[in-house]
Amino acid sequence: MRGDTSRSPVLDRLPDIDALVARFRHVRRATERLAEPIPAEDQVVQSMPDASPTKWHRAHTSWFFETFVLAPHLPDYQVYHPRFALLFNSYYQGAGPQFPRNLRGTLGRPTCDDITRYRAHVDDAIERLVDHHPDRLRDVASLIEVGLEHERQHQELLLTDIKHALASNPLQPAYRELEAAPPADPTPLRWRSYSGGVYRIGHSEQLNAFAFDNERPRHGVFLEPFALADRLITNGEFLNFIEDGGYDSPRWWLSAGWDLVQREQWHAPLYWQRLDERWHTFTLGGLRELRLDEPACHLSYFEADAYARWAGARLPTEAEWEVASADLPLNGNLLESHALHPRPATESPSNALRQAFGDVWEWTSSPYSPYPGFEPWSATLGEYNGKFMCNQFVLRGGSCLTATDHIRPTYRNFFPAQARWQCTGIRLAR
Amino acid sequence: MRGDTSRSPVLDRLPDIDALVARFRHVRRATERLAEPIPAEDQVVQSMPDASPTKWHRAHTSWFFETFVLAPHLPDYQVYHPRFALLFNSYYQGAGPQFPRNLRGTLGRPTCDDITRYRAHVDDAIERLVDHHPDRLRDVASLIEVGLEHERQHQELLLTDIKHALASNPLQPAYRELEAAPPADPTPLRWRSYSGGVYRIGHSEQLNAFAFDNERPRHGVFLEPFALADRLITNGEFLNFIEDGGYDSPRWWLSAGWDLVQREQWHAPLYWQRLDERWHTFTLGGLRELRLDEPACHLSYFEADAYARWAGARLPTEAEWEVASADLPLNGNLLESHALHPRPATESPSNALRQAFGDVWEWTSSPYSPYPGFEPWSATLGEYNGKFMCNQFVLRGGSCLTATDHIRPTYRNFFPAQARWQCTGIRLAR
Amino acid sequence: MRGDTSRSPVLDRLPDIDALVARFRHVRRATERLAEPIPAEDQVVQSMPDASPTKWHRAHTSWFFETFVLAPHLPDYQVYHPRFALLFNSYYQGAGPQFPRNLRGTLGRPTCDDITRYRAHVDDAIERLVDHHPDRLRDVASLIEVGLEHERQHQELLLTDIKHALASNPLQPAYRELEAAPPADPTPLRWRSYSGGVYRIGHSEQLNAFAFDNERPRHGVFLEPFALADRLITNGEFLNFIEDGGYDSPRWWLSAGWDLVQREQWHAPLYWQRLDERWHTFTLGGLRELRLDEPACHLSYFEADAYARWAGARLPTEAEWEVASADLPLNGNLLESHALHPRPATESPSNALRQAFGDVWEWTSSPYSPYPGFEPWSATLGEYNGKFMCNQFVLRGGSCLTATDHIRPTYRNFFPAQARWQCTGIRLAR
Amino acid sequence: MRGDTSRSPVLDRLPDIDALVARFRHVRRATERLAEPIPAEDQVVQSMPDASPTKWHRAHTSWFFETFVLAPHLPDYQVYHPRFALLFNSYYQGAGPQFPRNLRGTLGRPTCDDITRYRAHVDDAIERLVDHHPDRLRDVASLIEVGLEHERQHQELLLTDIKHALASNPLQPAYRELEAAPPADPTPLRWRSYSGGVYRIGHSEQLNAFAFDNERPRHGVFLEPFALADRLITNGEFLNFIEDGGYDSPRWWLSAGWDLVQREQWHAPLYWQRLDERWHTFTLGGLRELRLDEPACHLSYFEADAYARWAGARLPTEAEWEVASADLPLNGNLLESHALHPRPATESPSNALRQAFGDVWEWTSSPYSPYPGFEPWSATLGEYNGKFMCNQFVLRGGSCLTATDHIRPTYRNFFPAQARWQCTGIRLAR
Repeated sequence: MRGDTSRSPVLDRLPDIDALVARFRHVRRATERLAEPIPAEDQVVQSMPDASPTKWHRAHTSWFFETFVLAPHLPDYQVYHPRFALLFNSYYQGAGPQFPRNLRGTLGRPTCDDITRYRAHVDDAIERLVDHHPDRLRDVASLIEVGLEHERQHQELLLTDIKHALASNPLQPAYRELEAAPPADPTPLRWRSYSGGVYRIGHSEQLNAFAFDNERPRHGVFLEPFALADRLITNGEFLNFIEDGGYDSPRWWLSAGWDLVQREQWHAPLYWQRLDERWHTFTLGGLRELRLDEPACHLSYFEADAYARWAGARLPTEAEWEVASADLPLNGNLLESHALHPRPATESPSNALRQAFGDVWEWTSSPYSPYPGFEPWSATLGEYNGKFMCNQFVLRGGSCLTATDHIRPTYRNFFPAQARWQCTGIRLAR
Repeated sequence: MRGDTSRSPVLDRLPDIDALVARFRHVRRATERLAEPIPAEDQVVQSMPDASPTKWHRAHTSWFFETFVLAPHLPDYQVYHPRFALLFNSYYQGAGPQFPRNLRGTLGRPTCDDITRYRAHVDDAIERLVDHHPDRLRDVASLIEVGLEHERQHQELLLTDIKHALASNPLQPAYRELEAAPPADPTPLRWRSYSGGVYRIGHSEQLNAFAFDNERPRHGVFLEPFALADRLITNGEFLNFIEDGGYDSPRWWLSAGWDLVQREQWHAPLYWQRLDERWHTFTLGGLRELRLDEPACHLSYFEADAYARWAGARLPTEAEWEVASADLPLNGNLLESHALHPRPATESPSNALRQAFGDVWEWTSSPYSPYPGFEPWSATLGEYNGKFMCNQFVLRGGSCLTATDHIRPTYRNFFPAQARWQCTGIRLAR
Repeated sequence: MRGDTSRSPVLDRLPDIDALVARFRHVRRATERLAEPIPAEDQVVQSMPDASPTKWHRAHTSWFFETFVLAPHLPDYQVYHPRFALLFNSYYQGAGPQFPRNLRGTLGRPTCDDITRYRAHVDDAIERLVDHHPDRLRDVASLIEVGLEHERQHQELLLTDIKHALASNPLQPAYRELEAAPPADPTPLRWRSYSGGVYRIGHSEQLNAFAFDNERPRHGVFLEPFALADRLITNGEFLNFIEDGGYDSPRWWLSAGWDLVQREQWHAPLYWQRLDERWHTFTLGGLRELRLDEPACHLSYFEADAYARWAGARLPTEAEWEVASADLPLNGNLLESHALHPRPATESPSNALRQAFGDVWEWTSSPYSPYPGFEPWSATLGEYNGKFMCNQFVLRGGSCLTATDHIRPTYRNFFPAQARWQCTGIRLAR
Repeated sequence: MRGDTSRSPVLDRLPDIDALVARFRHVRRATERLAEPIPAEDQVVQSMPDASPTKWHRAHTSWFFETFVLAPHLPDYQVYHPRFALLFNSYYQGAGPQFPRNLRGTLGRPTCDDITRYRAHVDDAIERLVDHHPDRLRDVASLIEVGLEHERQHQELLLTDIKHALASNPLQPAYRELEAAPPADPTPLRWRSYSGGVYRIGHSEQLNAFAFDNERPRHGVFLEPFALADRLITNGEFLNFIEDGGYDSPRWWLSAGWDLVQREQWHAPLYWQRLDERWHTFTLGGLRELRLDEPACHLSYFEADAYARWAGARLPTEAEWEVASADLPLNGNLLESHALHPRPATESPSNALRQAFGDVWEWTSSPYSPYPGFEPWSATLGEYNGKFMCNQFVLRGGSCLTATDHIRPTYRNFFPAQARWQCTGIRLAR
C-alpha cells in the first residue's frame, strides 16, 4: 500500500533553447556578480547556523546542476570533485550524506578560486549537454529551469546571509555603496476592500510557465469579505509600537514569541541600533540613520503578528494576498532596481495595492501547508519543498533582493516564525 | 490605534443553578477520584518538562477558580495561600509571575494533604458565591463553566502525565488494574466519501451551549471532494509500516520529523517495547503484550503524517473531519467507559464513521490557526487559547481519557508536531 | 603489562562484634531519624542534578550493603528487588548500569514505605550474616565499616540536599525548628604560625583505624613556613567583601569563577536573600535574618578563593591544614550538637586553632590528587574515591552536619570548585 | 584589607638592545612565515571554540604589543583601529571588553591584508619606541620580552589550530609538504631512577633570564624515590591499549574521562582514522598511514592517565619531571627541526632521558596550582597565568611546534584534562 503521488517537473511545452541558454548564462553570471564585492575572507563566514557562507552558495548552486541535470543526463559526466557532494548537498537525503549545516563556516577549502573553477566546469558541461543532446532537451530544459529558479533563491540568500555577517562584525563594513531613495512625502495607509466568496488560487497549469510544486494545484478557497492595507507598514509606524511598549509586555504576543522576546532580549527589529540617541539600521550600504518613511523590515512573524494585533488589525492569509495581487503588474523595488533596500511607498493615482511586489516579503498568517491535491516533484527533487511543510509561515510578494523573473502572484516563500534576517515586513488586513 | 477585539465568555442564557452546582461537584470530585490511586510520592513527579505532577493539576485547577471566579466575584474572598498564585499559575501572564514550568517536580510542598484542604477551601467558596450572590450569577455561571471545562482538560492531562511518569519508572507500576477489551474480529478499513463544496464549520452561537473561543465563529470553508477511512489505523497496520522500514529512511518523513527520529532514536511509537522478541506496550494497567487490533496510539504528528504518506493517503484537514463528524452520535470509548485505553473497532451495521469520538485524538493536517473573525475571550482569559496559535496541529474527536460532557464535533485540541504522550492516533483521508 | 595496584579495605585487627553491631544499628537508625521530619512528597524531590532525593539516599545506602556485603558474603541472599540495583547504584560501573543521575527525582516508586521495608530487609540480613557466619567476619566487618562510613557521608548529603530542596521552594518550609546559638562577642581573627620543613601527612597504618583509601599512604611533604587564621571567616567579614564590590569586578576571581558569577548572576553566597533591606539566609530552620557573627557558609571554592585574594591572604593547602590540626581535640559543632547550622566562634584560652572541626568544611587550595603511592581499594570499591581525582578541590574538617565518629584530621572531602550547596566556608592562610 | 601581592615583569638587568630588536624582528617574521602557506579562506576558520583563526592569532599578538607596550610607553601612540581592541583582546578583563571567543570565526574583516598592515604599523612603532625612548628601555624591554614569549605561544597555537581546521575539512588539505622521519629501530623503554628527598624546583631569580610568573618562586618539594620512562610512549604501544579494549570499559578511566569517551564516542586518539583496514593519522602534511614508532600524540589527559593505569604505571608529577630534566641539554625535535610532527626515539649512548624536550608536551599528574609564594605579574598582565589555576593539568617539555628559545626545564604549560588538539603525549612514571 505504498504511495507515490509525486510528479516530475517536466515541461509540457517545447523549450526555446536559445532563450534557455541565454537565461542560464545570465543567471549564473548574476550570482558571480553579486559575490564580487565580497572579499575571500567574508565569503567563508557563517554568522549563524541559518545562514551560509557566500562561497557555499556559489558552490551549492553548481552542485545542484551537477546532481540533478548533469549526472543523470550528460553521458560520461565526471563530477568535479568526489567530496563536493558531501560538502555542497544542502538537505537532499536522496542525494547522499551532508556535511553538518551549522559547520559550513569551518570550511576554508575549497577556496573562492577553486569554486570559480568549479562553476566554470559545470557551466561548460551544461552548455555541452544542451548543444549535443537534443533528444534529452525536454527533460533537461525543465531541470535547468528548476536549477535557475533555485539559483535565484540562493542569490537572495547570498545577500541576506552576507548582510547578517557584515552586521555581526563590530567593524560593520558595507557590502557596497548604496544610493539612498529620495525622501517620500508621508502617504496615508488606505484600506482596499474585497468581497467574500469562492476564489481560485495557486498556479494554473494553463499558463505553461514554471512554478514550484508547492504552488499547485490551483484550487478553490472560500473567503469572507476582507480588506488589505494598500501599502506596507513603515519604520515610523513600527516605532510607534515600540514607543507604546510593544516589546515590554506579553499582551500582544504569541506565547512562543514572547518567550523569544525575553530570551533574546528583543527591543527592536533586527539591525536597529540606538546610537547617540537616534535610531540607526544596518543596510547593505553600511550603518545608516533610520528612515521613518521606509517599510519596516527584518521582522519575525512574531513581531509582524504582534504589531498587527496592537494596531487592531491582523495579517492577511495567503489566499487573501493572492486574490488581491493576482492581477497587479509585476513590478516594484526588486533586485533589478539595485536599491538592495526597501523604499518608501509613493502616491499612486489608482487605488490599487502598492508595494505588493518587491521591497519586503510580506508575512501572511497562513502556516505553510500543502494545497489540496498537492503532489511533490518526483524522486529526490520531491524534497525541495514538501518536507518543510511544518512550523513555517507563508510569505508573499518578493523583496528588494528578489529577481523580477523569479517572483509571481502564486509564489509561496516560507520561513519559521522566528526568522528575522530575511527582508520581511508587514501588510495589514482586517 | 490599539485594538481590543476580544469578548467575554459570558452566557446569553440564564443558567440552571442546581444543574450547575451538581456539575461543579461532580467534576471536582472526579478529579480527586482520578488522583486517588496515585500515591503521594508519584503525585510529585514531573517526568518531562511537558508533563505536570498530579498534585500540581489538582492545585492548578483550584487556582483557576480562585483567580477567575472567586477573586473578582466573591466579596472579601481570601486566597488560601498568598504564594500559591506563583506556584499554580500555569501561563497567564495577566495573572502574575509563574514558577518555572520545568521545575514543577521540585516542589514537595504543598503536600497532597495540603492540596486536599486547598480544594475544599475553594469548593466551599464557590458554593457560597453561588448561594449568596444571585446578582452575579450570569457572569459567575459562565466562568464556572469555563473552570469546569478547564478542569476536564486537566483530568485528561493528569492521566497522560502520570502514565508518562509510571512508564518512565523502571519498576513500571500500573495506575490501576484495567479490564482488557474482548478480542475483535479484524474489520476492514473502508472509505467513506464526501462531496466537495462550501460547508460551514465552527461552533454555532445558536446552540446556546459552551464552546471555547477557538471554536468560533462559525464560518464557511470550501472543500474539494474527499474520503475518510471509516475507522482508526490499528497497531497491526502501524507495525507493517515499521517492518517496511518506516523509521529507517527519511523517505516518508517531514524534515523536522526525520531529525527527531534520528536525534531521539525513535523506532516505534512511544511506550512500545520489544521484550522476549514480542512487542509490548505500557498502559495505565501496566506493561502488556501489544494487541494488533487496537488503534495505534501515542503517535506524534510526524509519525501520523509519515504513516499516511507511506500508505498512499494523507491526514484529514480539520474541516473535513468536522464535516464528516458533525451529525454523528456523541458516543464512543470515552472516559466514562473506564477502559482508559483505546479499544478495537467493531463492525457497524451502518456505513457511518466509526471511532470518531473517543479512543484516540485524531491528528489533522491543519495547523492550529484562528478562524476568520476569531475573537479571544476578554482580559486574562484571552490567553487561554489564542496565544498558542503557532507551530501546533489540530486534533479532533477526544480520546479514551476525555469526558463525554467535554467533547463535541467542533472541539479543537492542539499539540506540537512532536508530542507523543497524549492518546493520539491516525485516521486516513484521501 | 596490565596493572592492579589496588588493595582491599580488609582490617588487620579482629573486630569487636558487639561494638560493630551496635554501631551498625546506631548509624542505620540515625539515617531514618534524620529523614523523619521530611514528608513523603519532599523525599521525592531532586532540586538540582547534583542533589538526590531523601528516599534515594535511604535506599542507596541499603543497596550499598546489599551489593558489597550481603551479595558476596551471605549465602543464598536474595536481593530485595531485582531492579533496585539499577535505581540505587550511584556510580559503580563495576556493579552494573545506573539510572540517570539527573532523573532521580522522576521516581515516585519505590515509595517511602517501600524503602522502609527495604531497609529492614537489609538490616535483618546484615545481622544474620554477622550472627551466623563467624568465619567471614574479618572481611565482613571491614566492609560493614565501609558501609557505615558511606552512610555517614549520605546522612550529610541527605541534609544538604533537602536544604537545597526546601530553599528552592517558594514556600520555604523549615526542615525542623532550630535553636539559635547565643550571640557571640566579636572575636578577633588571630594568625597562628607554623614553621617550615618536611612533615608527614595522611593516615598512619599504625592507628589500626578506619580510613578511606584516599587518605593513604602517609607520606612526606615539604612546607614553607606558614600561618593560619585561628578561626573561620564570618558573615560580617564576607559582607565587607560584597560591599566592597567583590562580586562586581573580575579582579579577585579565577577566570572560570568570574564566568560563573556572570552566568549565574551571583551576588552573595547561596541562600542569602535581601528582604526589606536586610540580609536573610535560609537555614534548615527556615528563613532567618543573617547573623554577622556566624561563619560564612555555602560558598564555592571560587568565592572562598576570591575572598582570600581580596583579603590579601590565600587559602591553606591541605597539608598545611592537616599539620595544623593533627593534634587538636576532635570536637566542635558537629552533627551531635544538633545545631544543624554553623555557630559563632567563641574566645578560647589557648591560642590553638578554633573551629577546625565542625561548623563548615574548609576549602583548601589543594586540587584533589592521589597521594604518592596511592592504592585504591580493590575491585568495584576502587571506584569509591580514585576515579574522581580530577577537577575537584579538597575540603577539610567536617561541618555542623558531619557525625563526630566520621571525621578525623586526615579526612579528605572533595567537591568541584563551583559547588555551593554543601556547608563550606573559609579559613585564611598566608 | 585589600591585597596586591603582584609584581611587574620588569627585568633587573640592562637589556641588550640590539639583541632585543633582532629577536623582535625574528619572532615577528616567524609568525608571518608560519601563516604563509595558509590561504586567506583558511585563515578565517575557527573549527571549534577552543581554536582561533590564523588571522586572529596574527592580529592578537600585535594587539598585545599595542596594549601592553605601545599604549603605555610610546608618547602619542595612535592605535591602528579603535575597534581592534574589542576584536583582538583575548581575555584581559583589565583591558576592556572582548568579542565572544566562540564567534571569532564569524569575522571576515579585517582581512588578511588588513592584518599584514596592522602588524607593520605595530612593528614600526615598537622600533620607534626602542630607538627614541632610551629612558624607558628597562621597562619596555621587559614588556617586549613578554610580548615575544607570548607570540611564541601563539605560533604553536596557530599551528595546532590550523591543523584542527584542516583535519576537520573533509578535503583534508595539507598545511605544507612534510618530510618523513627515517624509520627507527624499535627501542626498548627503560626506567631511569631518581632518589627521594627535598629538591628545589621553579625558576631561579639568579638566572636573570625570562620566565613566566607561574614558574616562580623557586621552592622546595619533598619527593619519594621515583623512576621515569626514558622515552615517550609510541603509537604502537598505544595501539596495544586500544586493542586490549582500552576505550571499551570504564576500568582504566577517571569518571569524567569515561563520561567523555562515551559522549564523544572516542575510540582512538584525535586525528586517527581507520581507512581500508589500516590506521592513518592526519598530520600537517596531510593524511598519512600511522607509524607505530612515532610518539603517541593528540591525547587528552584522560587518555594519558588511562593508558598509564592500564600499563601498571602512572604519570609523573611536574616536580618529578623538572628534577629529572633540569640538567638535560635543551635540544630535541622542536620547531626549528621543521618536522612539525613527533619523531621516533633513537638509541642514545647515555642512559639519560630521551625526548624530554620537543616532540610532544608531556602530561603530568599535577593540577596547575600556584607555587608557594606565587606573585602574579602586576596590573592587567597579572591575568596572563594566575586566573587559570583551576581545573587544568601541567604539561612539560615543549613539542615539535615549540620554538627552542621558548622552552626551558621550569616551563609550565597547562590545558584542561579533555584537551586533545595540542601535541600532547605520555611519559610514564612509577
